[in-house]
Amino acid sequence: MKNRFKMPAPDDLHLHLRDGDVLRAVLPYTAQQFRRALIMPNTTSPILNERDVMNYRDQIALAAYGSGHPEFEPLMSIQITEHTTPETIRWALVAGAVAGKVYPRGMTTNSENGVLDYRAIYPALTAMEECGMLALFHGESPNPKVFCLDREAKFLKILKRIATKFPRLKIVMEHVTTAKAVECVEALPANVAATITVHHLFLTLDDVIGGKLQPHHFCKPVAKKPADRIALLIAATSGNPKFFLGTDSAPHPRSAKECASGCAGTFTAPVAVPLLAQLFEQQRVLGKLKNFCSGFGADFYNLPRNTGTITLIREDWTVPLIYGDVVPFWAGKTISWRME
Amino acid sequence: MKNRFKMPAPDDLHLHLRDGDVLRAVLPYTAQQFRRALIMPNTTSPILNERDVMNYRDQIALAAYGSGHPEFEPLMSIQITEHTTPETIRWALVAGAVAGKVYPRGMTTNSENGVLDYRAIYPALTAMEECGMLALFHGESPNPKVFCLDREAKFLKILKRIATKFPRLKIVMEHVTTAKAVECVEALPANVAATITVHHLFLTLDDVIGGKLQPHHFCKPVAKKPADRIALLIAATSGNPKFFLGTDSAPHPRSAKECASGCAGTFTAPVAVPLLAQLFEQQRVLGKLKNFCSGFGADFYNLPRNTGTITLIREDWTVPLIYGDVVPFWAGKTISWRME
Repeated sequence: MKNRFKMPAPDDLHLHLRDGDVLRAVLPYTAQQFRRALIMPNTTSPILNERDVMNYRDQIALAAYGSGHPEFEPLMSIQITEHTTPETIRWALVAGAVAGKVYPRGMTTNSENGVLDYRAIYPALTAMEECGMLALFHGESPNPKVFCLDREAKFLKILKRIATKFPRLKIVMEHVTTAKAVECVEALPANVAATITVHHLFLTLDDVIGGKLQPHHFCKPVAKKPADRIALLIAATSGNPKFFLGTDSAPHPRSAKECASGCAGTFTAPVAVPLLAQLFEQQRVLGKLKNFCSGFGADFYNLPRNTGTITLIREDWTVPLIYGDVVPFWAGKTISWRME
Repeated sequence: MKNRFKMPAPDDLHLHLRDGDVLRAVLPYTAQQFRRALIMPNTTSPILNERDVMNYRDQIALAAYGSGHPEFEPLMSIQITEHTTPETIRWALVAGAVAGKVYPRGMTTNSENGVLDYRAIYPALTAMEECGMLALFHGESPNPKVFCLDREAKFLKILKRIATKFPRLKIVMEHVTTAKAVECVEALPANVAATITVHHLFLTLDDVIGGKLQPHHFCKPVAKKPADRIALLIAATSGNPKFFLGTDSAPHPRSAKECASGCAGTFTAPVAVPLLAQLFEQQRVLGKLKNFCSGFGADFYNLPRNTGTITLIREDWTVPLIYGDVVPFWAGKTISWRME
């Protein structure tokens, strides 16, 4: 049994950093493990254009420098709304945005300006296809009449339609949670991929509402059935380059989780790679961690793979109950690998 | 449009009163509307035998007198565990217990001493059948491997087996939440009935996890799909005497709901009959309220129907945000009927 595990520096291709004090507080946990991260644009004041991209990247770069991680590279995105113009896309690309994120209206944190009619974003998607910007979809139907557990499955028709209409657009279905979504992404052409989070590899709906109510396991899309979790685990460890890590680590203050109307999101940044190492090793596929965390994502984004490495050490540690005022995933439980 | 609605005094055939200060605080809300209520035995120190029954009834009677409701009559129950003997059943009956409640182990509040193997309670069920004590089932499978949304459906096999084996035992499947359970109860002989709560006539899982997390809508069994809610609504307003009201009103202090590990339960006592009147009127079946709340339950329990009446007045009122430290169902929202 190996006691050290060295791997290429990983990328987190779905990360919420928020801004201001929260950004400075949470960034170091990601930067200790990841060389790059795709930064989500649904901040309280959303990232919508080239100016927002530059300002937000400056904030992140400053926080990275200030916390001793000058090498950390944020991959920037803008939010695609029904009002995003082709010109906005082209300027955002010039400013360094590599992706545009599409939210279904009202279905998750800060998505009130999201999309209801996907045809309204076809001009933006056309511009993205032309200039090589990725389209990232929060894959749930924006139709408020769709039952919560069916929202992801109902989105697949939209995904197929867009993938067919824009064959050269690189599309990522973010944080897949169902066996149906995994099958759909597998069946679509090579321009469609998916991210898988850490927490969806561990949780089912039973961990949210099956015993007492667990607000720190509540996220969007909500965790599904045991068979869905198994499908995600198989996809993540299969070696299929369509599936790669995007943690969707999403910090909320404890007061916004343990309250009468709780925010969706799970703060996995402090535990992401060690916990994945533990899980992959239990599945006897520790070697598959490299491509899942450090290979396939960069390839799909047309980025060079990272040249640096990280090393994990086999050593039990107990996850703190709280970081600042944010309760992390796996709080109070033990992990058998830690970062060197 | 009538502005007054007079009906026979209703019975709540599933109620959690807790004990001590909580009992004294919550009892008046029930006693203002209901003449009788079936009191659940899963108090912190559970009601297991004739001594517990007598002590608990004394506590309740004192609280009723003290709050100006001497006419309120608690219908007592004991909890049936794998250790309940036929002799315990007979003594509890003598002490006035009209029902025995069966909990699946660990599946809801204070059910750690519940049943895992239903054959273990056959001697108790035999004694109950002989002496005419009702058997009330929290109808969810105790198998922890069953997915949370499937637990009620998985219990139906157990229900059918027990109903067949004990044809003279009066059985109530409590707080049904699924179309499957409704169909099953309809199809079984006349010795099997079901209670329906107020909150399950309003909520689906979308109201718990579909938007932000709503701990005050979290209850066991958890609310299901829209089609399930419709099936309950049809059953409650159908005039089928197998379906009657049991609110399952279950007060928890706000701190036990808005926290990292939240208790299951919805406090509907202060709004129960007015809210049902509003719903039944919307469905244009206000007249069906009488049998659902004041007739079929008493009949199934072999109790005389209440002779007194209550009157509802058409007048908007806003439900308080909190009663003591308990957040009620429908908090802050308006109801178009109030108690006279």
